[in-house]
Amino acid sequence: MTVSREVELSGHIIDSGMMQACFGAIMDLGGSFEVEEFQIGRSEVEESYARLTVFAEDEAELRSIVHELHQNGANPSHPVDASLEPAPDDQVVPPDFYSTTNHPTEIRYDGEWLSVDRIEMDCAVVVEEGAGDGDDVDGDTGGDDAGGDGGPRAYTKVLNGIEAGDLVVTGETGIRVRPPERPRDKEGAFGFMQGGVSSERPSESTITKVAEAIAETKREGGSVLAVCGPALIHSGAREDLARLVREGYVDMLSAGNGFAVHDLERDLYGTSLGMDTESLDHPRKGHKHHIYTISEIIRAGGIEEAIDAGLVESGVMYECVENDRPYVLAGSIRDDGPLPDTITDAVEAQNAIREQAHEADLVLMLSTLLHSVAVGNCLSSTTRVICVDINPATVTQLLDRGSAQAVGMVTDIGTFVPILAEQLLDE
Amino acid sequence: MTVSREVELSGHIIDSGMMQACFGAIMDLGGSFEVEEFQIGRSEVEESYARLTVFAEDEAELRSIVHELHQNGANPSHPVDASLEPAPDDQVVPPDFYSTTNHPTEIRYDGEWLSVDRIEMDCAVVVEEGAGDGDDVDGDTGGDDAGGDGGPRAYTKVLNGIEAGDLVVTGETGIRVRPPERPRDKEGAFGFMQGGVSSERPSESTITKVAEAIAETKREGGSVLAVCGPALIHSGAREDLARLVREGYVDMLSAGNGFAVHDLERDLYGTSLGMDTESLDHPRKGHKHHIYTISEIIRAGGIEEAIDAGLVESGVMYECVENDRPYVLAGSIRDDGPLPDTITDAVEAQNAIREQAHEADLVLMLSTLLHSVAVGNCLSSTTRVICVDINPATVTQLLDRGSAQAVGMVTDIGTFVPILAEQLLDE
Amino acid sequence: MTVSREVELSGHIIDSGMMQACFGAIMDLGGSFEVEEFQIGRSEVEESYARLTVFAEDEAELRSIVHELHQNGANPSHPVDASLEPAPDDQVVPPDFYSTTNHPTEIRYDGEWLSVDRIEMDCAVVVEEGAGDGDDVDGDTGGDDAGGDGGPRAYTKVLNGIEAGDLVVTGETGIRVRPPERPRDKEGAFGFMQGGVSSERPSESTITKVAEAIAETKREGGSVLAVCGPALIHSGAREDLARLVREGYVDMLSAGNGFAVHDLERDLYGTSLGMDTESLDHPRKGHKHHIYTISEIIRAGGIEEAIDAGLVESGVMYECVENDRPYVLAGSIRDDGPLPDTITDAVEAQNAIREQAHEADLVLMLSTLLHSVAVGNCLSSTTRVICVDINPATVTQLLDRGSAQAVGMVTDIGTFVPILAEQLLDE
Amino acid sequence: MTVSREVELSGHIIDSGMMQACFGAIMDLGGSFEVEEFQIGRSEVEESYARLTVFAEDEAELRSIVHELHQNGANPSHPVDASLEPAPDDQVVPPDFYSTTNHPTEIRYDGEWLSVDRIEMDCAVVVEEGAGDGDDVDGDTGGDDAGGDGGPRAYTKVLNGIEAGDLVVTGETGIRVRPPERPRDKEGAFGFMQGGVSSERPSESTITKVAEAIAETKREGGSVLAVCGPALIHSGAREDLARLVREGYVDMLSAGNGFAVHDLERDLYGTSLGMDTESLDHPRKGHKHHIYTISEIIRAGGIEEAIDAGLVESGVMYECVENDRPYVLAGSIRDDGPLPDTITDAVEAQNAIREQAHEADLVLMLSTLLHSVAVGNCLSSTTRVICVDINPATVTQLLDRGSAQAVGMVTDIGTFVPILAEQLLDE
Repeated sequence: MTVSREVELSGHIIDSGMMQACFGAIMDLGGSFEVEEFQIGRSEVEESYARLTVFAEDEAELRSIVHELHQNGANPSHPVDASLEPAPDDQVVPPDFYSTTNHPTEIRYDGEWLSVDRIEMDCAVVVEEGAGDGDDVDGDTGGDDAGGDGGPRAYTKVLNGIEAGDLVVTGETGIRVRPPERPRDKEGAFGFMQGGVSSERPSESTITKVAEAIAETKREGGSVLAVCGPALIHSGAREDLARLVREGYVDMLSAGNGFAVHDLERDLYGTSLGMDTESLDHPRKGHKHHIYTISEIIRAGGIEEAIDAGLVESGVMYECVENDRPYVLAGSIRDDGPLPDTITDAVEAQNAIREQAHEADLVLMLSTLLHSVAVGNCLSSTTRVICVDINPATVTQLLDRGSAQAVGMVTDIGTFVPILAEQLLDE
Repeated sequence: MTVSREVELSGHIIDSGMMQACFGAIMDLGGSFEVEEFQIGRSEVEESYARLTVFAEDEAELRSIVHELHQNGANPSHPVDASLEPAPDDQVVPPDFYSTTNHPTEIRYDGEWLSVDRIEMDCAVVVEEGAGDGDDVDGDTGGDDAGGDGGPRAYTKVLNGIEAGDLVVTGETGIRVRPPERPRDKEGAFGFMQGGVSSERPSESTITKVAEAIAETKREGGSVLAVCGPALIHSGAREDLARLVREGYVDMLSAGNGFAVHDLERDLYGTSLGMDTESLDHPRKGHKHHIYTISEIIRAGGIEEAIDAGLVESGVMYECVENDRPYVLAGSIRDDGPLPDTITDAVEAQNAIREQAHEADLVLMLSTLLHSVAVGNCLSSTTRVICVDINPATVTQLLDRGSAQAVGMVTDIGTFVPILAEQLLDE
Repeated sequence: MTVSREVELSGHIIDSGMMQACFGAIMDLGGSFEVEEFQIGRSEVEESYARLTVFAEDEAELRSIVHELHQNGANPSHPVDASLEPAPDDQVVPPDFYSTTNHPTEIRYDGEWLSVDRIEMDCAVVVEEGAGDGDDVDGDTGGDDAGGDGGPRAYTKVLNGIEAGDLVVTGETGIRVRPPERPRDKEGAFGFMQGGVSSERPSESTITKVAEAIAETKREGGSVLAVCGPALIHSGAREDLARLVREGYVDMLSAGNGFAVHDLERDLYGTSLGMDTESLDHPRKGHKHHIYTISEIIRAGGIEEAIDAGLVESGVMYECVENDRPYVLAGSIRDDGPLPDTITDAVEAQNAIREQAHEADLVLMLSTLLHSVAVGNCLSSTTRVICVDINPATVTQLLDRGSAQAVGMVTDIGTFVPILAEQLLDE
Repeated sequence: MTVSREVELSGHIIDSGMMQACFGAIMDLGGSFEVEEFQIGRSEVEESYARLTVFAEDEAELRSIVHELHQNGANPSHPVDASLEPAPDDQVVPPDFYSTTNHPTEIRYDGEWLSVDRIEMDCAVVVEEGAGDGDDVDGDTGGDDAGGDGGPRAYTKVLNGIEAGDLVVTGETGIRVRPPERPRDKEGAFGFMQGGVSSERPSESTITKVAEAIAETKREGGSVLAVCGPALIHSGAREDLARLVREGYVDMLSAGNGFAVHDLERDLYGTSLGMDTESLDHPRKGHKHHIYTISEIIRAGGIEEAIDAGLVESGVMYECVENDRPYVLAGSIRDDGPLPDTITDAVEAQNAIREQAHEADLVLMLSTLLHSVAVGNCLSSTTRVICVDINPATVTQLLDRGSAQAVGMVTDIGTFVPILAEQLLDE
């Protein structure tokens, strides 16, 4: 027996790779196809349209193929509404719930296509039938941009944010995914953000491009999130990052306990990991400075309290506090201390990170795999990402998450940040 | 002005590198020395003894030198009791508290040397003057092996476990550290555990040595802790690790949410990260299997509940539950879900990991940096550690923590575990 | 002023990515296009056809676009003959000579399309107007499969093989390149060879696929070339590779001086890099064994002479000699010795490697970057390649050379070879 | 039966680790020892002296132990002359020839200790009984600093440089090796060169130290050798390296064919690997520029000819030629071309590299493993080496060769060179 289904694609379906991906998926999964209609955009600005009939041996195989096509932007020709089912319990989704990609997504509700708010990967989609009531709880990833117009609203929720009774989208009907298309031109500061990892690209010229992208984001009123690992401090880039925070090129900071500890250690003891980052000397008891730093900040009651008391007078955390740049310090099991400011619960920390990620227009991932993955998990594929690490495997892993606007650079964070700061601030 | 202090070293101070380290430290820090007495062990079994007078320009420099000598096992010739000060508040240590190394340590109390229980790095040392009262709280790393004999007791506490009034050791007087000495012979299964990282050693022969070390640990009644990353599942080693758990070669498991999810995904859907680990096929919706797995386990109420309900019937977590091998699943900010069994609070998770680490006689660190560092932070330098990863930087970082009984192997976990299991179980 | 040119594409131009690449190239280079004709293959077996007019600002820009389209398989609609110019001197090509890709290529000569023999990257194409006369010189990469039928023949020559008077193809007219298409199915042992690097794939299952691919190549009468680095010996895989050579699963060997030295050292002294690969002991003077080995082989007159004299009685080189498997030992500036058998001249060594590469149907690249790149430089994009290394950067670099039939595996060569041998020989 | 031998050590035998290494070697190899005499240097400037009797089960074991002790600087108490034997043939050493370490070495001849000239690893030691006659042949590593005083002279020869009749040192008697001692202070620009690899050190401060070391070498009239890989060009550091050559901070260049090709490509076409290193654009046919560059240089007759003809007007090779900085371009099997200037024979290239290595006072190894190993093979352990690479494994491997004056830095060559040039030239 042969079964079939009709699907359609539209947009820049050739140069975005959508048609290639769809043809490949059908063949890989053992199906076949016939092209019923094909209108090619006659020039680079016209969109194309294709309608295919997909054939498979049986219904299971067909569903499998249609699922893959759907992930790649091909949708049934004759859409129906999305299925909705109430969550049976808190944190429990209905079986066969729809799990999101990180691409812009719409669901069909009452014959209309609703855009899904705050899209991120591996979430459920919840529909509120009336006006958003705004009672935001942890894990609700959609609450705050709810309009008050009383119309229905769709937004993502992570599994642990689901509440009993939430109307959750199930199955795959009535859902449209739009993988990002290839930009039509290469002009503008973001033109370079399509090139994957650059381990052998000219380093200084690439940093110039990054500086332009940051400057452009700021000119357009956008928000820059810096995700920072402790290597940034050890490698001597602390003062330059602090300047970028002070001068407003970094609007938000996402880091871990260790980053803050070493930043504060440098203020309190002049060292990072026990080494003087100017003279390269190892002063007395240097290897214990980080634990003494933690002890001092606990004694003061926290970072802000230590700054208010005049104990800490410089550095990245200092500039964040003094200039009202919000920061999230997320805990991990390898932390010493931790500092009182560190959010030790992973779910709570994820929710705080999620808020940052959704607000950011440009994300700088600087020498941290753990925190970059955590932030990346919450990003839409349309958010601009610049990932810098000396380990090519880290850069590859971070870029390999489907973002169309991501660029990676394999370089030394200890030279990258100073050169970036010089370009943004001194020229 | 010149100030001086007399220190002494004893033991196998030459071949353990103690004298070399001490001489180097004095010169690096600008001091000088005279050897007052030196008795060399006349053969390889006799201990040596050295007494030096150390000179420095001023008291600060001298203290700095003596601190470094102390870390390397040189102690003042005329010891006095350790200083004790009560903690002013919960989580707040007295200024100048003594922060531990991971080497066996004694403190002098009332003229007697007390061994510090449950030694680990970067902790405070707390002295209980009477009998241990056993009221164990989180973060108390010393409570449970308190004798009931009424004598004084010294043990480590992490900073966040400190309670107001705890008597905390301060300064550096009255403290003796014993860096591990070089083993006197290379016989026995652990003879090979002195060799650092082996990226170019014969792989199969090295695995044979690891198997012997595990077998010997078990014969001696010891306990083996496996610290596991999700790559172990993706690389196809799950079934063989499950066998090792079942047959009693792994007594405890330390892992993260992702490890458990992918282990369970393989049971529920036959895949890991969406790929069938036997056929290498990617079945329909494979990339969503991990999120469905989490959802199924949440619905069941947890891993043990899912096993009891017959939902899960194989794998590492299954064998742990069925054979009463305790496990700790520690959460992190990059987790999906998490599973109900995952400890999401980092401090709580550290305390659970600490208990495992202190009980273990041999630790296998298998393809996870985060969890291995967390476990390693809690280990004494005398615990045997075998660290396996395909990334040499990970192995180097893990071994670079002062353990005298650690060995690293740069290999593929997906071939390592099967060969290890074959050697332990099939021969 | 606007200039234009008409080009056409045919074949599986969508799922091979050709159309996507062409559309992208036009936009990247600032041009525009109109689709004049488009016939889509109505099913997965039918080919498609597209005819475009490409527009650019000026002739230079247009030429630049057409060049890129050409590299991606788009050809002028109205082909003319290729231009030919005689080489002015030995090793000197005419300016604007056509430099090859590694894809199957045809050139138009006298109105006919001639297939270019022995295609490899970055070569010149030479046309012989009459019958191939067979006077093969070093660097002539095309001589030996010349037919005696008297017709014209086209083949590649590396720059240093060019002789004065050779008729060399210049410009880009009359040349057709066929980038490899996506295989129509995933069946057969080679179905898995489309998946890039597998660092997180199941290791044992992947080795099974590799074993199947080798077995299938041998069943079909094909030739397997192993390119081997010294890590293979250090990691203890020597005996199993020797078995594969003896049993005929490896037909040719390409390696360096160091590989041979360590293979022979193991025979003569029982060590590799001074370590006993069975017991892991370091016997007396072990670190000097490699230099003594070189000295012994020089004294004997060479590897074959040492085997004939009974000096060497086992190992990879031994099995190559005993079973007439041709080998090339290519020298490098980091060699000790070298052995008398090592070809120290890089150009001469390249020519020897080139012969091997052109004969091979399946190439195993085992733990050597230098020799693998050298072999890879000589391969057509249609040759099957399996690349194994523990360093993911090496695997990525080797696969990133446009081969459609290449697969990479990040694993430990010291466990890979034994498991491969077990699967091929013991089952 | 027990056999014994008396050995002695002198110098800073404790803080250099010599005693520790000797005690360890005896125990590892199953022997035992008694300390007959031990005079410890009573302060950091006095030398120590130890005399041991070493015991072993049999003569073979004893010889094995004594060999290891010898490598670590322990010598027989009652020295005799070194044994000499004539080489039986060209390139053939006597059996049991002494193979050198890279440490300063003396041999005892006629009751006198002769220093071995031009020490490097894995060579034979040849003694000329009369005056050095200066007939330098390839592979003779000792000829040119022969005094004319008519006395005997000892120097190293690589195996392929041995000539029939050369008097070669055999066995281990009458040979003294002096492993480098720990510097007595940390002052001076070279104080930082004892610290191994710095992946987490402050980058800019470390570059400052490197600049100081180069400046000091130049002030002292020393010679700086730069060993360069093509990544230096791709990463945009070409112009700054060219300035360093022009201004005399680099006296000699050691590189490969690819480095020169990409340096020249940038001059001829404005690209490196086809990319414009300023604008990051990929101009037309960019990926073919390297092969056209080779073709142009061949046509011109070589690099110097191309510069003389005005074809090439900038870059590293240009500055070398214009400022008479000698360069060696060593060929390898992965080269395209090669250029007429490239030495394609590995042995000939090694000899050219050897001359450079022996002349250098400071060696900068910049982003090339192959050429750095080749140079490193020819260096004495007393030559200063600074090794820079973005891959920590490369840095570790290069430093792991026993040089006491080597320092490694894991950073981006594309930012390292510009910052270094700025510090040396612009301040």
